Parts: sequence; C-alpha cells; structure tokens
Amino acid sequence: MPESRKLVLLAGVFLLTLVNLTQSGPIALRTPEDWDNAPSFGDRLLRKRSPTVSERPGCKEGATIPPNRVNTTKRLIDLRIQMDLYNISAYIVTSDNAHQGEEVAPHDHRREFICGLSGSSGTAVITKDAAAVWTDGRYFLQAENELDCNWILMKDGEAGVPNITAWLREVLKTDEKVAADPTLIGTTTWQRYDKDLAPIEFEPLPTNLIDVIWTTGRPPVNTEPGFILHLNYSGESWQDKVDRLRAELPKQGADALVITALDEVAWLLNIRGSDVPNHPVLLAYMYVSSTQLVLFAETSKISSPEMQTHLTGVTQRPYDRFVAELPDLAKSASMVLIPSQFVYTGGASYAVYNAIPETKRLLKPSPVLMMKAKKNTVEAEGMMNAHLKDAVALCDVISLMVEEIPKGVRWDELKVSAELLKYRAQQEVNKGASFNTIAGYGPNGAIIHYSASEETNAVIGTTSLFLLDSGGQYFDGTTDVTRTLHFGTPTAAQIKAYTLVLMGHLDLARLVFPKTTRDARVDVLARAPLFDQGLDYLHGTGHGIGHFGSIHESPTRVALGSSVENTFFENYFFSDEPGYYKAGDFGIRIESILRVIPTTFSTEFPDRFFRFQAVTLVPFERKLIDVTMLSDGQIDYVNDYYILVRQKVGAEMTKQNRTRAYNWLISQTEPLMLPEPVNKGVSIANKQVWVGIWTQLFISMFVVFKFY
Amino acid sequence: MPESRKLVLLAGVFLLTLVNLTQSGPIALRTPEDWDNAPSFGDRLLRKRSPTVSERPGCKEGATIPPNRVNTTKRLIDLRIQMDLYNISAYIVTSDNAHQGEEVAPHDHRREFICGLSGSSGTAVITKDAAAVWTDGRYFLQAENELDCNWILMKDGEAGVPNITAWLREVLKTDEKVAADPTLIGTTTWQRYDKDLAPIEFEPLPTNLIDVIWTTGRPPVNTEPGFILHLNYSGESWQDKVDRLRAELPKQGADALVITALDEVAWLLNIRGSDVPNHPVLLAYMYVSSTQLVLFAETSKISSPEMQTHLTGVTQRPYDRFVAELPDLAKSASMVLIPSQFVYTGGASYAVYNAIPETKRLLKPSPVLMMKAKKNTVEAEGMMNAHLKDAVALCDVISLMVEEIPKGVRWDELKVSAELLKYRAQQEVNKGASFNTIAGYGPNGAIIHYSASEETNAVIGTTSLFLLDSGGQYFDGTTDVTRTLHFGTPTAAQIKAYTLVLMGHLDLARLVFPKTTRDARVDVLARAPLFDQGLDYLHGTGHGIGHFGSIHESPTRVALGSSVENTFFENYFFSDEPGYYKAGDFGIRIESILRVIPTTFSTEFPDRFFRFQAVTLVPFERKLIDVTMLSDGQIDYVNDYYILVRQKVGAEMTKQNRTRAYNWLISQTEPLMLPEPVNKGVSIANKQVWVGIWTQLFISMFVVFKFY
Repeated sequence: MPESRKLVLLAGVFLLTLVNLTQSGPIALRTPEDWDNAPSFGDRLLRKRSPTVSERPGCKEGATIPPNRVNTTKRLIDLRIQMDLYNISAYIVTSDNAHQGEEVAPHDHRREFICGLSGSSGTAVITKDAAAVWTDGRYFLQAENELDCNWILMKDGEAGVPNITAWLREVLKTDEKVAADPTLIGTTTWQRYDKDLAPIEFEPLPTNLIDVIWTTGRPPVNTEPGFILHLNYSGESWQDKVDRLRAELPKQGADALVITALDEVAWLLNIRGSDVPNHPVLLAYMYVSSTQLVLFAETSKISSPEMQTHLTGVTQRPYDRFVAELPDLAKSASMVLIPSQFVYTGGASYAVYNAIPETKRLLKPSPVLMMKAKKNTVEAEGMMNAHLKDAVALCDVISLMVEEIPKGVRWDELKVSAELLKYRAQQEVNKGASFNTIAGYGPNGAIIHYSASEETNAVIGTTSLFLLDSGGQYFDGTTDVTRTLHFGTPTAAQIKAYTLVLMGHLDLARLVFPKTTRDARVDVLARAPLFDQGLDYLHGTGHGIGHFGSIHESPTRVALGSSVENTFFENYFFSDEPGYYKAGDFGIRIESILRVIPTTFSTEFPDRFFRFQAVTLVPFERKLIDVTMLSDGQIDYVNDYYILVRQKVGAEMTKQNRTRAYNWLISQTEPLMLPEPVNKGVSIANKQVWVGIWTQLFISMFVVFKFY
Repeated sequence: MPESRKLVLLAGVFLLTLVNLTQSGPIALRTPEDWDNAPSFGDRLLRKRSPTVSERPGCKEGATIPPNRVNTTKRLIDLRIQMDLYNISAYIVTSDNAHQGEEVAPHDHRREFICGLSGSSGTAVITKDAAAVWTDGRYFLQAENELDCNWILMKDGEAGVPNITAWLREVLKTDEKVAADPTLIGTTTWQRYDKDLAPIEFEPLPTNLIDVIWTTGRPPVNTEPGFILHLNYSGESWQDKVDRLRAELPKQGADALVITALDEVAWLLNIRGSDVPNHPVLLAYMYVSSTQLVLFAETSKISSPEMQTHLTGVTQRPYDRFVAELPDLAKSASMVLIPSQFVYTGGASYAVYNAIPETKRLLKPSPVLMMKAKKNTVEAEGMMNAHLKDAVALCDVISLMVEEIPKGVRWDELKVSAELLKYRAQQEVNKGASFNTIAGYGPNGAIIHYSASEETNAVIGTTSLFLLDSGGQYFDGTTDVTRTLHFGTPTAAQIKAYTLVLMGHLDLARLVFPKTTRDARVDVLARAPLFDQGLDYLHGTGHGIGHFGSIHESPTRVALGSSVENTFFENYFFSDEPGYYKAGDFGIRIESILRVIPTTFSTEFPDRFFRFQAVTLVPFERKLIDVTMLSDGQIDYVNDYYILVRQKVGAEMTKQNRTRAYNWLISQTEPLMLPEPVNKGVSIANKQVWVGIWTQLFISMFVVFKFY
C-alpha cells in the first residue's frame, strides 16, 4: 500500500499541510517558494475568518442533511460537563493510541467517537461553544457526510484554514486552559502545541475525558493472548537481540531505553499478539538497561506456561503501570533514550517523556528500529517465502477473476477483498491481512487511499482498470503487493499510462547503486518517465516493510520530496510502487517488494554496489504493456523476472495443484518481444518473391501450353 | 570543470577525508558505516604512529632526491625565529586568501612558499622541530616530488594519518600554543581547531608570519584597476540590487550584513577586476545595512572618474581597514549576518566573525549568494550568448585538431590550452579563461584534476581518448565545457565507455521534474548507466556557474553523496558532467551547462514542472557513440540538440566566416540513426522479388522463343 497513509497519521496535524504537498489527493499544490510568500495567519484573518459551521453544506438554513451524519450533541454535552469539572476551556482528541503507531484498535477510536468521522486521520478540538476537526484532503468528502452540524470542518492545507493552535489562540482568551491526554500525543507534537499556545496554558490531563463519557457502545479490548514467534521464524533469540541492544546503547549515548512502539517490543522479544487489526502485536512497553529488562503487558495475555518459559529472565509488570513506574526504573540510569518521531514511527508520548527526569532524557530515533530493519537470514528467507505463498494466493484470485468477469459473473470490490482473505488463509501460517485491501475499479482506483464500502462498492467491468493493493501477514513475513488489471480490451491511453508507470517501476527495480546511497535519492528513477509526459503521483515511491510486523516500517522511505534520508543496508526490504491516478477515470499502481542485496563486478569497483532482488513474484498486466515504449534494459528485466516467476511460483502452484492459477501464470509470463520488423519484412518479401515466382511459372506454363 | 576541486579547497582540511569519499582519485573508499567502525585516533596510534619524514621516498639514507624539490630549510629557520618571538609552538598556514574563495592570486600563495607544494589544496603546520603538510589524493605524487625532507607528507584520507589537531595534540604539550592568521581561516574551521586543540591554546595572531619572512621573490599584487560591468551585461543596477538585499535582510533575521566573497561584491555593485587569476573580481569587502553601504577596496583601483560616478552613494574605505572598522560599523546594528561556509563558498574568516560583537553575530549563508544564483533575463541571455561564442571558438580549435592530428602535425596538451586561449580571445568581450584548461590525452585524461605541465605534457595521438575541459570569461557570461575526443579509430571498449557516460549525461539533461526538486536528488540519473556496468566516477555531477564570475557558484551542487541539498529555481545555471576514468588508460567526461526553465503541459499538472535548456552547444564525439545502446528518448534528445547546434552555432560560424569549423560542425551533427532493419529487410526482399520476376520473365521468354 502507498506509504502516505501511515506518514500522515504519524506526522500529526502540524505536518499535515506539508505532507499534503506530496501526499494527498485533490488539494492545491504549493512549492516551498510559495510557502515563503504564503500569508501569515494574521494576514489570512484580514482576508477571511476561519471556517465556521454555517459554511458547511447541509448546515445552512433549510438544507438537506446527509443520512450518514452522526449525532454528537449528547456526547459533546457530556464532554463539556467533564471539561467544566476540570476547569478546561478546550480539549484536544487525537486519533492515536498510546503507542503512536499506524493501526489503532476500535476500542481506541476516541476521535471517531466524539466527532463521527470514521477516517483514519484527524484531530478534534472541543471548546465550550465550538467543536472543530482537522483532516486532510483524503477525508474532506467523507467528513462532510459524517460530521453533524456541531462540527466545523478544518480542511488542512487549504487557504484560510488555521492550524489547531492558531485557531485556539483565535477563540480563547489568554488566561484560559487547553488540555489533552499526554499518553495519546507524541512528544514533539505536544511540545509544539505547548510552545504555540503560549501564553494559553496546555495541560496534560491524567484522566482521559473521552474514556469517562464513552460508557455505552464502546468496542471491547482484545482478549486473545499473545503468542511466541519461534526461532525458526525469528532467526535470533530475544536474549541475543537484547545483548546486541545493550551493546548499542552506550554508542547512542544512553545506558537505558524505553520502547513504546508495538512492533519493536514484538521484534525484540519474539512475541506477537492480536491487539491491533492487521498488525500482529501485543499492547506492551519495555524498559531496557544493562541490568534491567522489563515488559509491561496485560498479565492475562502472557500467562501461558509456554510464554512464561519463553519470557524467563524478563521482569513482567502490568501494562497500565508503565508510565507510573518509569521514574523508579530510571533511578539507576544516567541517560534514558526516549524514541523520537522518525519516518513512520510516532515515538514516545509526552507522558512517557515527562516521566523521565529532565536531566536523563535523550530524545532520538529508537536503536531497535534500526536493528529490526536489517532482516537476519531467517527473516529474509521467510520474507521471500511469504511473498511466494502470497503470489500463489493472489494469482489464484486474479485467474478466477480473469475467467469469470468476461463471462459476466459478478465481481465487486468487496468480493475481491473477501476472496483474497480466503485464498491467503489457504496458505501456510497465514495470519490474515496486513492492511485493509484497496480494490478500486475505474474512478475508485484513482482515489489513492480508497477503501471500498457498501456505498462505494463498484462492480468490476471490462472497460476500465482495476487497482488491487493488498497484503497478508504470515509467521514468516509480511506482504504488500499492488497489481493493476484489465479484464477487457484496454484503450491506447490506458496502455500508455500503465506502461509509463511500469517503466518507472522497472527503472528503480533494476538499479545498481553505491552502498552509501540514501533512499530518497533514487526516487526520481521511478518518476522520470511520468514527469516526461507532464504526469506524477502524489505519494512516496516506497516504504520499508516489517517481518510479520508493520506494513510501513522505518527507516526506508523512497520519496523525492522527503526531508529525511536513510542509507540502504543489506537485507532492507521496501516497496517500489509508482502510480498514476486520473481523477474520475482510473488509477494505476504497480507495487513490488524489493530486497537490498550486495552485487559484485570485475571492474575497478568490485564491491562498491548494491542491487535489488525481486521479492514480490506476480506477473504484470500483459495486455497493458506497450513493449515498443520499453528500453532493452527494461525488457530484459521483465523477461528475467518472468523466468523467476515461472520457476518459483509455477513450481509452488504445481505443488499446490492450482491448475487454473498455473495456466494463467504461464500465459502471462511469455517473454516480452519487440515486434521484429526484420523477420516480418523478410517474410512478407519472401512471400512476394514466391508469389512472383509462382506467377511467372504460371505464365510460363500458360505460354508453353498455349503455344506449344 | 568538475566541481570537486573547488569543494576540496573550501571545505578545508577537516572535510578532506569526507570529500575524498566521493571526490578524489586513487584513495580507498569507505562507506559511512565504515566510518562508524573506523578506529579512533587512539586506536590508530596503537597500530601505527603518524607518518614521519623518514618514511618518505628520497628521504631515506642514500636515496635519490627528486629534482623538483624546493629547498625550504632557510624559510623554516626564518619562520621559527618569528614563532619564537611570539612564543608560539606551532603555526598553521592555509592555502586560502582572506576571502575564502577558490582562486587565489600568486601573491597569496603562502602555503606553497613555505612548503614548496604547488598544488591548489593543502595546509602546512610548522612546529619547533617538525613540519607537516596535509593534502588529498590528487596531490600525493606531486607532493612527494616537490616537498623536501623537512616535510612530513600527511596523506588525507589514508589509514593511520591523523588530522591536523590530532597530530598537534600528539606532538605538543598541553601548555604550548598554536597560532594562525585569523583572516585566512574560515570561521567554522577556526572554531573546530579551537575546540579540538583544547586545552592547547589556539591564538589568532594579527601579524602574518609568512608575510614577515617572504621578503624576496614574492609575486606582486595586481595593480590593474577595477572596471564597471555595464547594465547591458548586468541587467540590473546596483541600486536596485541593494534595495532588494535590504528588503531581504529582515527576513533573514538581521539588519546588517558583511560581504566577504569576492564574486558577491562584484555582482552586487556591478564591478569587476583582475586581482585573481581566471576570476574577474576586485579584492574588496562590503558592509550593508538599511542606512550604510560601505565598500572596502584598494583606493587606486576604483579611482577612475567613471568608477567614481558609478559608485556614487557608496561609502568608500581602504581595503585593509575592513576588519578594523567593523566594530564601529556594527554599532548601529542589532544583528549582523556573517556569511557561513556554504557549498562552494568559504564564508567569512574568523577575523571578520570576531570583529562583530558576540551578541550581534548571525552566522548563515549569504543572501547575496542566493540572489546572485537566479540570473536575471539579461544575465541569462548573456550566458546563452557567451556559450554560443565559446562554442565557435572551441569547435574551431577542435576542427583544426581533427584536420591536423591524423596528418601527423604535433599537438600536445599545452598547445591545446594555448590555442584555446587564442581562439576564445577572438570572440567578442572575452576576458581570458575561466579556469586552467584540463587537457589530458590517454592516461593523463584519467587524472580528474589534471593540469598539464612541461613534465607531463603529452603529444595527442590517434589511439586513445582526449579529454578537454575548458572555459572562458566574457562580459556576458562564464563558460565551462568538456568534450572527449578521438582522432583515430576508437576501440569497442572506448566506444562503450563513452556511450555509457553520454547516456547518463543525456538522461539528466532531458529530465522534466517538479519545481520543488532538490539538486542532489537528480544525480542518480547521470550515473545509473555506469552503475549498471559496475562503474562510477568519484566526483559530483554538476555545479552552479556564475555570470562573468565564479566557475563554481553556490548553491547548486548535483551530487549523489552530498549532505547539502538545494532546490532548483528558474534561471539557475549549472553543469551536467558525468565521466569515467580508467586509470592508466583514458578519461571520459562530457560536460554541458544547463539552464533551469519552466515547462507547461496540458495535463492535470500544467505548471508543476521545470526542465533544462541546453546552454552549451558543442557536438558530442560522433565516432564514440554506439547508437544501439541509446534509448529512443536519448536519440531524440541528441537529434534535437544537433538541430539547435546547427541553427545557432552554424549561423554564428557563417557570420564569422569560419568555414573549417562550420564544415566540421555539419559533419558532426548529422542525425543519429539506428541501423534500420525494416527498410533494409524490405529493400533486400524487393530486390529478390524483382530478381524472381525477371528470372521468370526470362524463363517465360525462353520458353516462348524456344517452343514457339
């Protein structure tokens, strides 16, 4: 899946406008130069007040109210009673849970509860007499449909829209107080709010006011226990990982570390869980020093005898005691590393940061994150295997669609998602999806973060393109693959657009590059063919991917406009996913996972280079490729890839007796060939020669017989 | 010319090892990861002491001493007497003048005087009983030949070689004192030395000790006066530029600015001079605030009536009063912007920095630098015109070589430089070369910063490649162009290598890219074809270029490994110069200047993009191009370029009656064509058809006549 979703979530509202520059849908694009010239907030006020409720469609006198609007009147009354109790003039509700990760359990959808907007990104702010929600371009339409007239919609990135703190300074008096739950806001964001609100006070409130008022209809927390990821999947014991981490800490300038990211706890201790949708992790924190190794997790979830044996040597404390016990734990440390926000990783909350004594705080990217990104041999081979199985499942579904759709069998977007879940579940050690499938036919495919609902669910036809971005979780790896398909006869314009995207995809995939190269510096290769035609895609080209973990894993981010760059290392895994989205018409994205591997040459630079190994093994849409647009290098790459796909996936399909999928696979992986004008020319000409010869022979014979 | 030379000069010794990673010649390459694992200086000492004099070839017992060594014994005795007078234990002599620019007048070659090394880069350090000079890989061989046995050669970037401060800490006691001239060392470097030497004291000595002892044989300072660059070349009055600068200062957080870079003074006041070789500038400083506008320059050089009229409104003070008068000038300012080191720009010296009261110092890149980089319309058209004239001169010399060399007429590298100077001088408003020509035949071409001397001067033959990197200064612009030529029949290996370099050159030149793109992020395009074959070049791909100014102008630097990135703006001019250097065999570099221009599309992104306009108009070496290796896009670009070259340069040659050059130009700019198998196939086949038809007709006739 495109990594923009995660980034938007994590960067928080203060980054939203910036992110929108390269990430989001139908919003105005502005260059950095424009930003310099952009009106200050003060200037904006002169031109236009902040948006109001009365500007919203359906909130004007006599307007029709969309049917999906959530009535939040009582919720807001309840919340304001609580705000009064705490003498608070404004309360901020974010979309995050306490771990600042991408996926959040329904139990933690506090922002959705208070305002009704079900989109994954947004921040709600409630004052005594107003309520506003900030969201980005992806959710503008949805927000208009779901927010009732209690809510002002703040369209991030649009002109005249203030940010949260500017709005609060506009509507509050300087002696009023803003509050939020410090466990649900990352340190960097919290500190910025605090600074920008001054002299208005920003108070960390220990009680979460949404939790107080959300007494009915709240989804329960998951109760499934955690489980062990055994050595045959993890490749390294947690004891060895902890040893390596402890050796790393002094290099980072610390002698202790808090771990707040769920996938970091999971990776370090080789445990997993089912607490968050699509993300096989357990809600947990850790504290690590040279002498301490403490896991904070729900006792009931790690109480099995196997888990207890596995965790021998790990001090176990209840999940909800983490922040409270931090000051005590940190007593013996001289410097505690607190994870900062970094690429896709939200970093520690302000509550965690605040619990460490001021002189002992070292805010920087978690070293666990960097260790985890370099997959060990078992993990790397597991990733290859997971993608092999995943290819079988995906090809099986596609081959069924190819068989049925032209015959008129009804396939809609939701059915594709359901079938994919079913077919992935047939593969060994599958643990469901790695994210909600993005299946978009025609115009739906042009919505970058589309998620089909009952309302939007389109029937897949034979005239437009079908974009399918999905992935699975397996004990041996996490997958993420996008293919764009056509079930009829594509138009020339569709073929050209697809081929342009494919060219960029291939040019990145086949790159050889020095080992010191940073990720953001190779992005241009994936875009150059589109740029050349005046086209582009408003999301990053690639994101790191975890091993039975996060679908968007730091640090790799391939993005031309990214301000953070990270060097590639051996056995980094990441996605290569350029696209093109023609609003109202179709969407194209081609995504494969690549693995960073060394390569040698017998030149004066024998060991200077890395290259990428193809991890995803699914054919491209053959009928959408205009071979004459491809370079020799691109054609060679595709044909080598096809041989590999046949060898690996073909064999696995044979093993699994999946004949339909196998036949489709073979038909899709015939070598690409340029029209061969030489042979064609000669063969036509030869035909002419023979026509000439036979004609003349006939004439000769005629003459002979006539006159003889 | 490749921009590495300038960078090395400016970055100073502390950057040399880092720079060597991507810049220099035959030194070991280390990745950033290696750096993390590199032994600390303490570790190195355990393995190996710092280099000593006795390790140098020719300094061992009974060795033969190279003839070029400069006897520095008396100079060192003189210097040490001065050091004693000032109670100094070590004295640092850098290669810079007081303006930290690239080009330095012979009068200021203090480091060369004290140690004998004539290379442009190096720092000498003299203690009471030792003398050491640090230089980079480009000058190792030269240093061995030129340094006498008073000198330890410190090969920057090689294992076991300490940096300057580490060595001084090794050889001095902690109560000893190191000194240097603070006007000749940039602020950043000075502060680092100061920090790294502690507790050893680092003293800014007002008297330059080399100036005291260099009493005979010192080249005089230039006495030619400065001159005005009139509005028809500059395009904007200095008054308007100063107005713009003054409006910019508050945005930068300052109300005053010192200008120490020579090309910034020249640009701001529309004046030029002849004080520095190849660099048309006047030695001068400026101080600018909302009420003050002060020029510090040698009075005799700006005393002409025209200049005095031109400078009406500018307060004029003697050049050597600058540092002394700064405290007084700054009295009315609340914050003074002091230029920091930035890309190719050295920034203000420590003496300048130190002259501003501590609370008023704002060290950041000069705003003049950023204003200057965006050429106005007159400057931009001037650059185009200068490159057109320059193309005529260069093609004329090349066409003469093409005519004469195969006939056996002797052309050597120095002759090419001399002829180029002569031919460029025939063009309107030429003011000599913009840098020392790099003309390298065969193995000499593989030395990236080669400069032919009487000793190395090679005769240009017909078997290897000839690399020619040169440029001119014109009132209307500065040029810099590299073409690689072959005067005989190239080998397949030579053709393949040249074509790989050309492919990268073209892929960068034909790029379309979003206006927000940063320079370092497009570099990979120029290298990808070489990477693919396990090849690379150890220098940047491109550098900004000034208008009748610096050959390496900040901020543009296209370099995959650069840590600083800058966004492209309209009318930035920079070089596109990938290369390949096969040590001991040949060198290839193809360099053209490109201009950043907007481009529009009738897509959903009509105004999103920039593209590059070709500024340099000189044909590529036709016989070195393997057309079958090029993509359709590359061939189209070359053929469009050829049409442009014929139109522009052809017309100018006709105007100038340069028939030889014109004929060569036309012969070199025939469209590139792929071997056309279609037509060939058909035409052969058609022939067969006709043979068949005629044969049969003949048979028919034979039959008819025989049997009739």
